[in-house]
Amino acid sequence: MPFKLPFKQVDVFTSEGFKGNPVAVINCLGINESEVTKDQLQAVANWTNLSETTFIFKPSSDQFDYKLRIFTPKNELPFAGHPTIGSCKAFLEFTNQIGKKDVVYQECGVGRVELTIKGKLISFQGEQTIVEDIADDVAKGYAQTLGVTPIETVKLLKVGPNWVVILVDEAQLCYNSNPDFAKISQISNVNDHTGIILGGKKKGTTNEYEMRAFAPVINVDEDPVCGSGALAFIRYLKDAEKIEATSEIKITQGGRLGRNGQISGIVKVHEDGKYTYHVGGDSLTVIEGQILL
Amino acid sequence: MPFKLPFKQVDVFTSEGFKGNPVAVINCLGINESEVTKDQLQAVANWTNLSETTFIFKPSSDQFDYKLRIFTPKNELPFAGHPTIGSCKAFLEFTNQIGKKDVVYQECGVGRVELTIKGKLISFQGEQTIVEDIADDVAKGYAQTLGVTPIETVKLLKVGPNWVVILVDEAQLCYNSNPDFAKISQISNVNDHTGIILGGKKKGTTNEYEMRAFAPVINVDEDPVCGSGALAFIRYLKDAEKIEATSEIKITQGGRLGRNGQISGIVKVHEDGKYTYHVGGDSLTVIEGQILL
Repeated sequence: MPFKLPFKQVDVFTSEGFKGNPVAVINCLGINESEVTKDQLQAVANWTNLSETTFIFKPSSDQFDYKLRIFTPKNELPFAGHPTIGSCKAFLEFTNQIGKKDVVYQECGVGRVELTIKGKLISFQGEQTIVEDIADDVAKGYAQTLGVTPIETVKLLKVGPNWVVILVDEAQLCYNSNPDFAKISQISNVNDHTGIILGGKKKGTTNEYEMRAFAPVINVDEDPVCGSGALAFIRYLKDAEKIEATSEIKITQGGRLGRNGQISGIVKVHEDGKYTYHVGGDSLTVIEGQILL
Repeated sequence: MPFKLPFKQVDVFTSEGFKGNPVAVINCLGINESEVTKDQLQAVANWTNLSETTFIFKPSSDQFDYKLRIFTPKNELPFAGHPTIGSCKAFLEFTNQIGKKDVVYQECGVGRVELTIKGKLISFQGEQTIVEDIADDVAKGYAQTLGVTPIETVKLLKVGPNWVVILVDEAQLCYNSNPDFAKISQISNVNDHTGIILGGKKKGTTNEYEMRAFAPVINVDEDPVCGSGALAFIRYLKDAEKIEATSEIKITQGGRLGRNGQISGIVKVHEDGKYTYHVGGDSLTVIEGQILL
């Protein structure tokens, strides 16, 4: 007999329906993880055709609130940004804990992820933010595919996905770029990169940016609103903009795809001089019901 | 205030969940069509990311049971095969008419579409099945992209989409093909074709075929189970196999994508010598609930 499980499709990085990035979330708290196979979960994620489908299970110990398994249509991921925020929102709704928790601990492939909740805003702390140089000709190649001129050194940000971050002079240049996806795919493929994060500052603002994410090599020409991309971008800005005090970075994304994603990035400087990086946003449950698994 | 409307995601051409082709169906029978804009409906279909999302409205007259509007993530379609079957199934469930109707008339962009219901099987009659020749070099070019040798003349089938139909010697050759999607896309683009329907007969059977559908030019490298493709294919077989009496053609599709689509095609020969073409299958509601529009 198939399971009938609670289902939600949550729009992330938006408070307005259909303007963010969707994730399908299946509540498996009522069953044991051993009752379903990886192939079954993969088949569901292939069928929904969303960039990610997630499954909330009972955690392995009480240091976590829940265990999350995250699937793209092709494979399972140890972590992903917008699916984590959307799944946390769904978890709070499924368990009637909206407004009752400030911190949630998610168990997933990268270990424990801490989520903080302030009103409607749910944020995760980036676990891995490694900055690496890339070869000049590769950086130039990417800039050419986008038709842009970087204003700071292009870097590789390993945040789970491997994002190449390019900063241009202003938001409009970012918005206007018409990328050559076939060429991006070629360069990404050779260099084991996920894709490009392109950002530009909004003129006359302190910390507001327009951002875009291109990952044709994984069949995502342009991601509407990208959590891991935002994590890579704020980590990049910490160096590029020489951020030395805790700062909120407001990012908009998705305009060229008819979306209006709103991301809150926080570069946090701790008393001991250490930095942490946090990405958050509002989210909204658009579809809710049940799924026959 | 947004509308909260009944929602179903139906798996079509299968009686087993996640093995067919999904369509999202939104029940708008409780509102008037004028209360929503085309842009709103398009935004929903872009967000679900399914090949088609449909909206069931009250019909314009009582010669129809309902009016269906069909959207891909990019545009509105006058008609589509699997979305019509899935939407009819959803309509019958939404209105508690499962088991109570043998015929349903759908109003849509191509006019009136007749659907017949026999137990779990819902079939539509093809409204347009135009057969045209294509240039030899184009046919050869397509065959090369698939690495196959056609055993009958390749034809263009205009059934709404413009499918080029290629028949190979047996099912396994069809199943084994590893297409060059970039080259298919090039040829399709120049010739205004939707893509290729590739079919091969199952050895030792009378009328059983394996079929595949490739449409990279519309961003669908391979469609898991394709209603309009099946319509094109059975119309093609009527000539290629010189079908002169009413015949059922059983088609399987989607194996290479982990699906197991089961299509029932019927070439019907009427008393006056006219032919009609019917495509049907089982379907299963996998997700049901509500959507905030």
